[in-house]
Amino acid sequence: MSRSASDLRVDPERLRGNFTSLARIGATSGGGVHRPTFSQAHLEARKWFYEQAQQAGLKAQIDSAGNHSARLQCGIPGAKTLLLGSHLDSVPNGGRFDGALGVLCALEVVQTIKEASLSLTTDLEAIDFTDEEGTYGNLLGSRALVGKLQAKELQTPYGGREAFQEALERAGLTASDLLSAARDPNGLAGYLEVHIEQGPKLAQCGADIGVVTSIVSTCRYRLSFIGRADHSGTMPMENRRDAAQGASAFALTARDTVLWEFKDCVANVGNMTFEPGAFNVVPAAVNVCLEFRSSDQERLQRLERALIRQAHQQAERFDLELRVEQLEAIPPTPMNIEVQQAIKEAAELLDLKPLSLPSGAGHDAQSFAALCPSGMIFVPSVGGFSHSPKEFTDWRDCVNGANVLLHTALKMARAGGT
Amino acid sequence: MSRSASDLRVDPERLRGNFTSLARIGATSGGGVHRPTFSQAHLEARKWFYEQAQQAGLKAQIDSAGNHSARLQCGIPGAKTLLLGSHLDSVPNGGRFDGALGVLCALEVVQTIKEASLSLTTDLEAIDFTDEEGTYGNLLGSRALVGKLQAKELQTPYGGREAFQEALERAGLTASDLLSAARDPNGLAGYLEVHIEQGPKLAQCGADIGVVTSIVSTCRYRLSFIGRADHSGTMPMENRRDAAQGASAFALTARDTVLWEFKDCVANVGNMTFEPGAFNVVPAAVNVCLEFRSSDQERLQRLERALIRQAHQQAERFDLELRVEQLEAIPPTPMNIEVQQAIKEAAELLDLKPLSLPSGAGHDAQSFAALCPSGMIFVPSVGGFSHSPKEFTDWRDCVNGANVLLHTALKMARAGGT
Repeated sequence: MSRSASDLRVDPERLRGNFTSLARIGATSGGGVHRPTFSQAHLEARKWFYEQAQQAGLKAQIDSAGNHSARLQCGIPGAKTLLLGSHLDSVPNGGRFDGALGVLCALEVVQTIKEASLSLTTDLEAIDFTDEEGTYGNLLGSRALVGKLQAKELQTPYGGREAFQEALERAGLTASDLLSAARDPNGLAGYLEVHIEQGPKLAQCGADIGVVTSIVSTCRYRLSFIGRADHSGTMPMENRRDAAQGASAFALTARDTVLWEFKDCVANVGNMTFEPGAFNVVPAAVNVCLEFRSSDQERLQRLERALIRQAHQQAERFDLELRVEQLEAIPPTPMNIEVQQAIKEAAELLDLKPLSLPSGAGHDAQSFAALCPSGMIFVPSVGGFSHSPKEFTDWRDCVNGANVLLHTALKMARAGGT
Repeated sequence: MSRSASDLRVDPERLRGNFTSLARIGATSGGGVHRPTFSQAHLEARKWFYEQAQQAGLKAQIDSAGNHSARLQCGIPGAKTLLLGSHLDSVPNGGRFDGALGVLCALEVVQTIKEASLSLTTDLEAIDFTDEEGTYGNLLGSRALVGKLQAKELQTPYGGREAFQEALERAGLTASDLLSAARDPNGLAGYLEVHIEQGPKLAQCGADIGVVTSIVSTCRYRLSFIGRADHSGTMPMENRRDAAQGASAFALTARDTVLWEFKDCVANVGNMTFEPGAFNVVPAAVNVCLEFRSSDQERLQRLERALIRQAHQQAERFDLELRVEQLEAIPPTPMNIEVQQAIKEAAELLDLKPLSLPSGAGHDAQSFAALCPSGMIFVPSVGGFSHSPKEFTDWRDCVNGANVLLHTALKMARAGGT
């Protein structure tokens, strides 16, 4: 790398100004943001990004899956594109850093490289993916871009068809638009993403930068415990078939199983919905949203069998039926070895201490790993909090993440992709 | 009672025709009805009732709380009114009999008495009360009529202010309308209601007619278990403050407490709502709808202390905060002794076997018991099912209920009220 390129740094003031502006969009009173996919706040955040790209003299574009991009062309005909991505949507009442930091770092890096007038052998594209958080479908935008999105799953979006349809209309999109966003994977030089760790490990080890080795495998299930609606004042307790009992017993036993037998895994009952859900009606059905993760596919499958067996046992215990529906089963995704090495070298160039670790969270990098050299750069999360207004990363670490992205991207974009 | 009056019977064919017509409004595929208060189906059912009253030559009227009535005047200036009531709203996905049967029997009785041209000393009024089921507020319409509704509670309706406001607009009402519906209690000669038992006791004892002795006391609470939102893939299990764990453990222990120590009481966790409620977020808060009932006030208070103590214990166990909000505390309501006697005599006149029993469910009779002689007539529920599409009463029992109402009403309306 030339002397001038290795001295290059992002503009921390500009990055901070952008961070502050973006965090105002959908800000919550608790200090977080509420920007579920295609909410007004999310659409506003995307518009803001588009305008920033234009003002920076980059090529602003929106594909048919709603992914928003800021492109810098290298001028070589037929050049591949190195994607620098993340997402501007949030979980309900989420934090300011998850996704947003990655998009801002990507924009800042592309802008910095443009201003340095470095010659590249690939195009650079900072990209904000649609619905990373899975309000309607997991990694919706990045999977649309790589052609992995299936028509079938758009029939049964997470939030329900009606809400999805309304959301698409707000965004000016249709389901068939989403399905036509696939790009030629041969045009991809690679994929890089800066993200907060969302866990406590980097801080515990005194590391500045996380080099992601792989993204854990994730399973999602909808478990429906089905009993019988009865009047809560008149049906004797012992005659009830109370769906809440089976669902509650399952939530407790799922946690115990992980704590006792699967300490290397995690599980979450993130939601339950009651039918009919009234004070004076014994619950006829409770739908449980279950998710569990492991960095090891075989362990995940063992945990899966244990959890489903327990769901059946608890249903039987309370004289309930059980409906089991697997919504998602994502295998572990290894990150590219050479990209991991490039991230480490970039960290060392910047006198930062890197640590290799798996990602417990899913990310858009999963969509690209099989198609092009892909990697992720983590920055420390104070207290490990995420998906919460308590999410926080020291500003120094945010700037470090942007500079590591800059030098990893430069290595890949000047080598012409791999 | 004169010979002609004691021979009087309702028209079972007309009653059945009306039952069939009404059950079509808001009918569900499972054989029940879905007519939550001020839903389109509920408004349609009320319109149907109003038109039936007009066609029967009765005076159809709607008060400012939306209560719908069919009146038969006795012609005596300043006469009191004997109310025959129930309700046309249902719980979500409820049954065809709860409430509807009582309104139809009331209408049929008033119509039968009108056609028999009997001279009365009180006016008769078949009345359909607004929101008996408490979609927005418990016994809303009958409590408005007796002046017990308070402005404060309309600020925090069960379904939330926004939904309540929209519902009121659909019905063409305002909160201040509801508060101005009070009538002079001195104008009330009494209150009678036919209702399905919603429990299995009448059938178990081989009785035809239930004579309600009192309505149980009911407590409703909102318990909020509050933890912390975290990313479900990255926050280690042992560091989580998972609100779902406390709420689930409470639901299980509440049931056990009643089964083991309070067999004369009932308790129900009818709903839980999760915040934020996503697959990949550890639940930050779970709001639990808790209801419990007893026919004995002192037992209810002991159960209340036990349940709240357990909620605190479970919150502590999982490192959660607990917010406790009492929404309702209704003491037991005894039914009038003379009205109970009149119902028994009416049953015996009709060769039906009466059984005295308390009501485990709340009813609009609670609103009137302190103000005028009030009573309730139960008919058997097959299997004890209620608040469910499985709700069923043999047609013979429905007609028996109407005839017992007829002769109890005649006794009260010809005696000039008590």
